[in-house]
Amino acid sequence: MSACITLAHGAGGKKTAELIDTVFKAHLANPLFTGDDAAVLPTPGKKLAFSTDGFIVSPSDFPGGNIGKLSICGTVNDLACMGAEPLYLSCAVVIEEGLPLCDLDRYVKTMAETAAEVGVQVVAGDTKVAGKGQVDRIFITTTGIGKLTDGVETSGAKAVPGDAVIVTGDIGRHGCTILLARNTFGIDAAVTSDCAPLWGAVESMLSVTKDVHVIRDATRGGVGTVLYEIAAQSKVGICLQSAQIPVAPAVRGACGMLGLEPLYLACEGRMVVIAPAAQAPALVAALRRTPYAREAAVIGRVTAEQAGHVVMETEIGAKTMLPPPRGELLPRIC
Amino acid sequence: MSACITLAHGAGGKKTAELIDTVFKAHLANPLFTGDDAAVLPTPGKKLAFSTDGFIVSPSDFPGGNIGKLSICGTVNDLACMGAEPLYLSCAVVIEEGLPLCDLDRYVKTMAETAAEVGVQVVAGDTKVAGKGQVDRIFITTTGIGKLTDGVETSGAKAVPGDAVIVTGDIGRHGCTILLARNTFGIDAAVTSDCAPLWGAVESMLSVTKDVHVIRDATRGGVGTVLYEIAAQSKVGICLQSAQIPVAPAVRGACGMLGLEPLYLACEGRMVVIAPAAQAPALVAALRRTPYAREAAVIGRVTAEQAGHVVMETEIGAKTMLPPPRGELLPRIC
Repeated sequence: MSACITLAHGAGGKKTAELIDTVFKAHLANPLFTGDDAAVLPTPGKKLAFSTDGFIVSPSDFPGGNIGKLSICGTVNDLACMGAEPLYLSCAVVIEEGLPLCDLDRYVKTMAETAAEVGVQVVAGDTKVAGKGQVDRIFITTTGIGKLTDGVETSGAKAVPGDAVIVTGDIGRHGCTILLARNTFGIDAAVTSDCAPLWGAVESMLSVTKDVHVIRDATRGGVGTVLYEIAAQSKVGICLQSAQIPVAPAVRGACGMLGLEPLYLACEGRMVVIAPAAQAPALVAALRRTPYAREAAVIGRVTAEQAGHVVMETEIGAKTMLPPPRGELLPRIC
Repeated sequence: MSACITLAHGAGGKKTAELIDTVFKAHLANPLFTGDDAAVLPTPGKKLAFSTDGFIVSPSDFPGGNIGKLSICGTVNDLACMGAEPLYLSCAVVIEEGLPLCDLDRYVKTMAETAAEVGVQVVAGDTKVAGKGQVDRIFITTTGIGKLTDGVETSGAKAVPGDAVIVTGDIGRHGCTILLARNTFGIDAAVTSDCAPLWGAVESMLSVTKDVHVIRDATRGGVGTVLYEIAAQSKVGICLQSAQIPVAPAVRGACGMLGLEPLYLACEGRMVVIAPAAQAPALVAALRRTPYAREAAVIGRVTAEQAGHVVMETEIGAKTMLPPPRGELLPRIC
């Protein structure tokens, strides 16, 4: 596959059909995969979860994943955050003229592998080609339909004082990986993205209890931004035990050199879970039984005080307020 | 609204939330519109239609529409082609840093107006911002869920000899409009895009009979490409009466000057319908009762001869083969 994408691959004719057959169908084929205008799907349940996400990460290959893996994990995780089992995905790609076909093939292969791991089917798609310089390599938008788990109702507005705050693993790895992959800082650290599909982790939690108040994936803006959003939506305070927050040593080191707070770096395989404190030990144990949440930990609690804010508490009890997110994230992290 | 999109609008923090509130929610708000990771939807029926489409048209404003209108019509029409009533849409946008906010606002406003006309709800979304020069103004991906009409089973493989071939209106207007809007030919013709939502036209047809074999919207590649696809999938020939094909005089004129065949220019509000000849008069009458299909016409018939090919017949009976599509469409037409 030394060929490159041409505008004809996006013209809707024979070359488009060939591209779909040799790349998309070759990797993603399943009984529901459609060649018509829309896929026809059996109804998954009484209520559907429906979510969409666009992926524009640069670079499109990075340690621990690529844009294809990211595009499946992102939408799978958004559905999982609602307590919904991901069933069907659609995938729309915009490809830059000149992209090597082998790169596209690698991304779609990774999409297929990730989808197979989760048990979600990619059933509909669209392929467009933009002229050279009109899109940066490739953008992928995935949209998912999930089956809501009966009895689960999670929302950013449901945290209540006394709840435990859990993260499902060490934080900040995706954001740190992308920053270092851009190679502008000359820092060489062994950091890989945490990019992973988390439905298995959520399913394991829900087998223990359905009494989970909030599940959010900590993508753009990281855990800190998600916690500030929850604090605002639920009108509560959040108090974190800083020593309990899992951060990989390489991430901590790189953040130290760059003056970054890991709480504000994007994750692509980590969730924040808020649940009654009494359920926390069993939830953490359930999470740790799954492959992408072995370092799940309680990192804090929901408080009535300091409503709307996130407070950090040190081991000796000193409290400082986590600065609110400022929206100055470096671009194209996901 | 003289402000412009900044990278902070895509960082997932406060500015992103503001943009969603002041532009997307302001225009698209409905009871199911989600601020969480996924929308929760009542199940529409026993089977779902599910379709996605990415829109990258350049220029993003054109006579008769803009990329916002196109993004709603495209997915609505793909669902309609399956005989499915469009119910829910998601919308993922990638915006170029520096895009004037008033442009974004205009596109989203048009999306809302078009969705309201169809009765489809935009319930989930995603907003990303790419750096200047990394995307051309704005790309929009919409994904739709529709309710399949009981008893309707359309497919490109279901045309049979003897069927009538219908188009729902004059052809080639969108492609012609985009070509002229680029202003590279110095041709000044009063051509507007046919961009329109067609569920109403399909619903009207299906109220007459559910015995419709093929419904396809003639987007990229135009009516000619769609007919060649159907001829291949159904292993039949298609014979067109050239005098019956509706083409607006301005489109015919521009095509004459540029040496283009209207059958190969994209439409964004026209469908090809293939149905038993006995049903054709009632189907055409039903189409003509709806606002975007007043010029619906039978333009040919399905034949056992010339399988895999499209033949043009003149008024005096001379037959020539329509050249097969060559995939050299001009880029970024939809």
